[in-house]
Amino acid sequence: MKNETFQTILKRRSVRSFLPEPPKQEELELILEAGRNAPSAMNQQAWHFTVIRDQALLRKLETACKSAFLESTIEYLREIAAQESFSVFYHAPMIVIVTADRTAIAPQYDSTLAMENMLLAATSLGIGSCWTHAVMMFHASERGKEIFRELGIDFPENHEPYAAAVFGYPAGPWPETPPRNPDCVTIIG
Amino acid sequence: MKNETFQTILKRRSVRSFLPEPPKQEELELILEAGRNAPSAMNQQAWHFTVIRDQALLRKLETACKSAFLESTIEYLREIAAQESFSVFYHAPMIVIVTADRTAIAPQYDSTLAMENMLLAATSLGIGSCWTHAVMMFHASERGKEIFRELGIDFPENHEPYAAAVFGYPAGPWPETPPRNPDCVTIIG
Repeated sequence: MKNETFQTILKRRSVRSFLPEPPKQEELELILEAGRNAPSAMNQQAWHFTVIRDQALLRKLETACKSAFLESTIEYLREIAAQESFSVFYHAPMIVIVTADRTAIAPQYDSTLAMENMLLAATSLGIGSCWTHAVMMFHASERGKEIFRELGIDFPENHEPYAAAVFGYPAGPWPETPPRNPDCVTIIG
Repeated sequence: MKNETFQTILKRRSVRSFLPEPPKQEELELILEAGRNAPSAMNQQAWHFTVIRDQALLRKLETACKSAFLESTIEYLREIAAQESFSVFYHAPMIVIVTADRTAIAPQYDSTLAMENMLLAATSLGIGSCWTHAVMMFHASERGKEIFRELGIDFPENHEPYAAAVFGYPAGPWPETPPRNPDCVTIIG
């Protein structure tokens, strides 16, 4: 019998269908605490966590970020975004964006480690989550930065978004684990 | 009382002092399984895990990687590496290097997410770990790539190392949690 941490790691899946209510305040606080306890380069903790639960704002940001997929150089992203019903946030009721000081030692690493902690923390509470790369793709463009500002989503000075995920209670059954790629380990010694 | 997953997330710390024996085979397998169950961009799982337990090879790689710190543009890294007793692997008995296909959608993200799972899995088993950035820094140079080849550490074609950590049983008490930075959360809505 694997311990609960393993069970959580194995249970964590990308959830793409959510109930309308966001996670409870105390659940959000636990998730953020998990993120803030990730390792960071030289313990800089150069991160900042921006949580959006304002549903009107979230839907505006979702529509804006979809354009990053529609204009992507990756054909697959353009194809899925072309579907009317496709939503980059999967209509989730909450997003957490991890930004970090771009002059820190390893801002992308720090942010990603923090996000995996949050995905696992959420899983352990029965809350679904899905990494949303569209945020970073969209913010990378000048137009994207402008829209974030117009929407009133301000990050700390010198910060860029490096990780983002949506969170919410799953609307359907917990997703099955897709098969793992075989032959991905080499052991020397 | 927080659930076990949270307890593991809060317990995980960078351990820098290890007993000489590497983790048991079944523990290593659990750690790798945790890594392989991380999320990846479009579920590409473009990663490969290279484990080194050969102690002579590990000590050679450790010495080689130290040069990346000695020659770093970051003064702090040069200073700590200048200490005779400083070891980039902290004399740990095992390293796991996560490489990924550099042509994948998000190889650094995938590798980092996998590594955080492994750090937490190890923690849940009482195994200490420490991220070792020196591996990526060293491999980034032409000389570094050459030394990896000379040492017989071959990665799959088109792969680069994006995450690395050492693992082992802690030689001393489990480290204390350094203070968390305050004021790093913004909630909208």
